[in-house]
Formats: sequence, structure tokens, C-alpha cells
Amino acid sequence: MSHNSIQLKNPHLEGMPSDYLYHLAINVPDTKNTGDIQKQFGDVRVICTGGTAIRMLELAKYLGKLLGVEDTSEPVDLCAKGHRYALYKVGPVICVSHGVGSSTFSVVLHELLKLVHYAKCQDPIFLRIGTCGGIGVTPGTVVVTKDAFNGLLRNEHEIAILGERVVRPAQFPESVIKDILAYGVRPDDGFQIISANTMGTDCFYEGQGRTDGAICEYTAEDKMKFLHKCHDLGIRNIEMEASFFASITQKIGVKAGDICVTLLNRLDGDQVNAEKKEEFEHRPFLVVGRYIQQLLKK
Amino acid sequence: MSHNSIQLKNPHLEGMPSDYLYHLAINVPDTKNTGDIQKQFGDVRVICTGGTAIRMLELAKYLGKLLGVEDTSEPVDLCAKGHRYALYKVGPVICVSHGVGSSTFSVVLHELLKLVHYAKCQDPIFLRIGTCGGIGVTPGTVVVTKDAFNGLLRNEHEIAILGERVVRPAQFPESVIKDILAYGVRPDDGFQIISANTMGTDCFYEGQGRTDGAICEYTAEDKMKFLHKCHDLGIRNIEMEASFFASITQKIGVKAGDICVTLLNRLDGDQVNAEKKEEFEHRPFLVVGRYIQQLLKK
Repeated sequence: MSHNSIQLKNPHLEGMPSDYLYHLAINVPDTKNTGDIQKQFGDVRVICTGGTAIRMLELAKYLGKLLGVEDTSEPVDLCAKGHRYALYKVGPVICVSHGVGSSTFSVVLHELLKLVHYAKCQDPIFLRIGTCGGIGVTPGTVVVTKDAFNGLLRNEHEIAILGERVVRPAQFPESVIKDILAYGVRPDDGFQIISANTMGTDCFYEGQGRTDGAICEYTAEDKMKFLHKCHDLGIRNIEMEASFFASITQKIGVKAGDICVTLLNRLDGDQVNAEKKEEFEHRPFLVVGRYIQQLLKK
Repeated sequence: MSHNSIQLKNPHLEGMPSDYLYHLAINVPDTKNTGDIQKQFGDVRVICTGGTAIRMLELAKYLGKLLGVEDTSEPVDLCAKGHRYALYKVGPVICVSHGVGSSTFSVVLHELLKLVHYAKCQDPIFLRIGTCGGIGVTPGTVVVTKDAFNGLLRNEHEIAILGERVVRPAQFPESVIKDILAYGVRPDDGFQIISANTMGTDCFYEGQGRTDGAICEYTAEDKMKFLHKCHDLGIRNIEMEASFFASITQKIGVKAGDICVTLLNRLDGDQVNAEKKEEFEHRPFLVVGRYIQQLLKK
């Protein structure tokens, strides 16, 4: 195997004759001879992920046009049979939905890592684009994550493995952040893009200090204190995937970046105003599109 | 408000003039006068939830027929505008997709609890139907959850709130379990149904002791030791929602039940065999259908 394809951190895979990527509904009938998978996915350089299937379809169509992909037909969901995640391929890019939060993202990320491993993709980069709440930044600001914090305000990700807490570092590679900022932005874009820390929580309501969930046992003052504490840690946006995403890609040693647009400033309130949502959601497309264009020139 | 409609655990809601249930894309323009929401959802007695949109559509169609709902047209996704969750209504039942795991379920469960609150639904019951891995039971066995354990093998749910760990109890009400077992089963069904403990994890691979993920840092022996430890705690199935679901419904004091079919016996392996999946997935439909029939007679 070429040294540029990714090395997974699981010695057990060597002993598996076949591997069914259950939630993607992709079968690898012979792990020692993955010619078919290489033929279908071997050219993939960038794996874009995001919450909803419809946004990933839009992104696929947008990137197909931008990158001048020859096949201009509507992208087809290659994981439709699995009913859980949607996967669209446009040239050397796949766009995959991951749902809301780490639990659902973890399932598909493990399987995507195995997919690019079996397909022997060269130097693949994983990107996540999404929406989020901002802290002290103008709504519509695009945040490229530096250090990812979990809901406990620690720059790490914690999961339970075999009944024990396991803590892993959660940083995104500086080189990717630098390139995204260098190539993704144009001065006349009309919006701000910054690199900052991100908090990824397991709960949208209580986990992010909202006071508009079905349960809330703290005061408005407690909440503001919490948000200011986040701000003091350099956290400028809150979503539900960053610490998990950073920890897994860092562990494997694969390049990754998290690019989210803030829909609101949490210092001003909790409710999400959907008015400018579509316009805002397009901003990470612009940034990621230009970055990928530059990447593929290399 | 009638004492039979649910009381949320959030005093802040009283002060909110309007409430936009963002991920459901349902707007409550006036929280003090929810006539429209009551008209649309006030008759709801049962909220069925499950992973995928397609399974929830199938369940809605199945229940519509079983309950003799007059409107026999194809159920429409009432949350399609939100692009994240699907919600179908058939008579006094709604069937809602929640995605994979607690993080995505938490978003929709908070909003569903607010929805039934604003709609003043009488004595609503929340049910989850799903698929899972079994521990020491024949594949195809249906498990009705008693006590819900988290990935740390504790009968509780832990979340981070305002940066601190908060631990909540996670049991399902005995009366619901008893009724599901009493009304949901027939001797000639040809499959086993049991009430047992369930572990809900945040990760399908490392969190459930699988050795076929992209990362695995333990041995096959460690894994088996873990699964036997689970078995000793009375845990007969593993999924990704139970401890969260139990903790929130128990906190609010609303009736709830978790009914899952095992697709494999984890003591025999990790890979999911999709062969009998469709047949197995129908079993919770049968059980929940009969239980709801009985419930609506009361």
C-alpha cells in the first residue's frame, strides 16, 4: 500500500476477510483485493461532510460545476440503500451527510475512514461544513475551527470505551486552517471569516446553555456567565461535532478541517432566526469550493 | 391547562412570547394562544420515534391501517421544511425520525416535548422503536428496555451542562413495560420478546466494544470481557439512545418505552448481517401496534 493512503488504527482489520460498511450499505467482499472499491472511489481526494442530505446534494452540484466535472447529470445518492446517510460523488470529491451531532457522525466517519482506506485514496482530506451558534461574532461569520472543546470546556474529546472514560486531544492541523484562510476567502465576499476555537456539545439545548429547551434548570445569569467563559477560552462558535471530529482525524493522522457559519450571536439570544439561513449556508460552500480548487491544482 | 398535559421543566418558557421549533420547522407564533397547534396536534396520544425517515413512514402507514384511520392517503412529512427530521401523523399517533444516537435524538426530543406541551396533548406516551445488537439472545429477539445504562456501564445518563457533568437517572416506567408485554405479544408470533436492561452508547464502534471500526486499541479478549460484564448487569441489548431517552422522559415525568429488535448476537461477532433485517425490523411494529390499539381503547 502506498504510504500516502491512510493507515487506520485497528490491527483487527487485517484479519477480516470481508467488511460490510453497514450504515453506508457498501460491501467490501474481499479486503485483500479491493479493486472494485478502488475503481469507484480511488480518485477521491476530498471528503466533505455536513448535517443534511439536501445540503450535501447542493454542495455536490455546486462543486461539480465549480470544478468543471465532466458528468453534469444530477448526482446520485450512492448510499441510498442504507437509508441513514447520503453520499454523492462529483469527480474527486464526495459529499456525505452525517446528521446532527457526534453520535451519528461517529458511525459514518468510522465507515468513511475505512472506505478511503480500502479505496487507497491518496492523501485524502476530511472537511465538515455546517451551521452553528456564534459567541460575540456577527451572525453570518464563517469560523474555521482551531482547537475543539467539548461541553466540559476542555480542549479534548471524551468517549466511553469498554466502560471506561477515554480522553483524546482535539486539534485541527494548522496547515489546513492556513490554506483554507489563504485560498477560501476573497476581500469582496462581504462576510467575515476567522479562525477560532469551537465547542462541540452533545446537546443543542442544555448542552449549549440555551434557556428555550424542554428542560432548563439554570438562570439566565448562569447561562451568560457560561457563554462569557467560553468566549474567554477563545471559543467563537458552538456546534455538535467539532471535538469528536478533531479527535478521530487527529488520532488517525488524516488532514481535516471544520468550517461553519454562525446563524446567530448567542450573546443576544437562543432562538434561531431562519430568515438569512440560506444566504448564510452558502458561505461555507464558497470557502470550501475555492480551497478545494486550489488543492486539486497541487 | 389540564393536569393531564405535560409540564415541562423550564420556567423560562413562560416568558417567551413565541417559540420557533427550529429543527422541526414548526412555529408557535403565540405561546399564550396555541389554538392552531392544538387543532393540528392536540389529539396526539402516542409519539413514536425511530432512526430513519423511511421506517417512520412505513410505521405510520402500518399504524394507519391497523387503527382504521379514515384518511388513507399517503402520510405527508410535516417537518419537511426543516430537512432534518421527518414527522408523519396518522390519527392520534405521530411517527418521527430521530437519526442515529443521543445527540441527534436530543434535539428532536426537546422540540417534540415542547410541541405536545403547546398542543396540550392529553397523557401522551413516547415510544422509540429501533434496531440494536443483542448480548446472549437469539437475533430477532425484541427487547423492551427496563433500566438504561450508559457507555460507562452505569444506570444513568451523563451530560455536560454549563461546562459541568450532570448525572440523571435513566429508568423506563414499569407500567409501560408491563402493558407492552401484556398487549404487544401473541404466542404464535414466532419470536421472543423480553424485558431487560439496555446500554445506550455514543459510539457504534469503540463505544460498543466492536473490533471492526477505523480505530480499535483493545484486544478481542478485552472486548469479550466487556460484553460479559454487560451481560452480568442484565444488559441484553446495545443501541445508542436508551440512557438519554430514559433520562429526559423520566425527568419530565412523561410515559415512555424503548422497544428494539436485535439484529445480531454480539457474543458471536460484530458485523451486521442485513439478510433478515427487514423481517426483524417489522417485529417492533407488531408489538407497538397492538400496544397502541389497546391504549386507545382506554
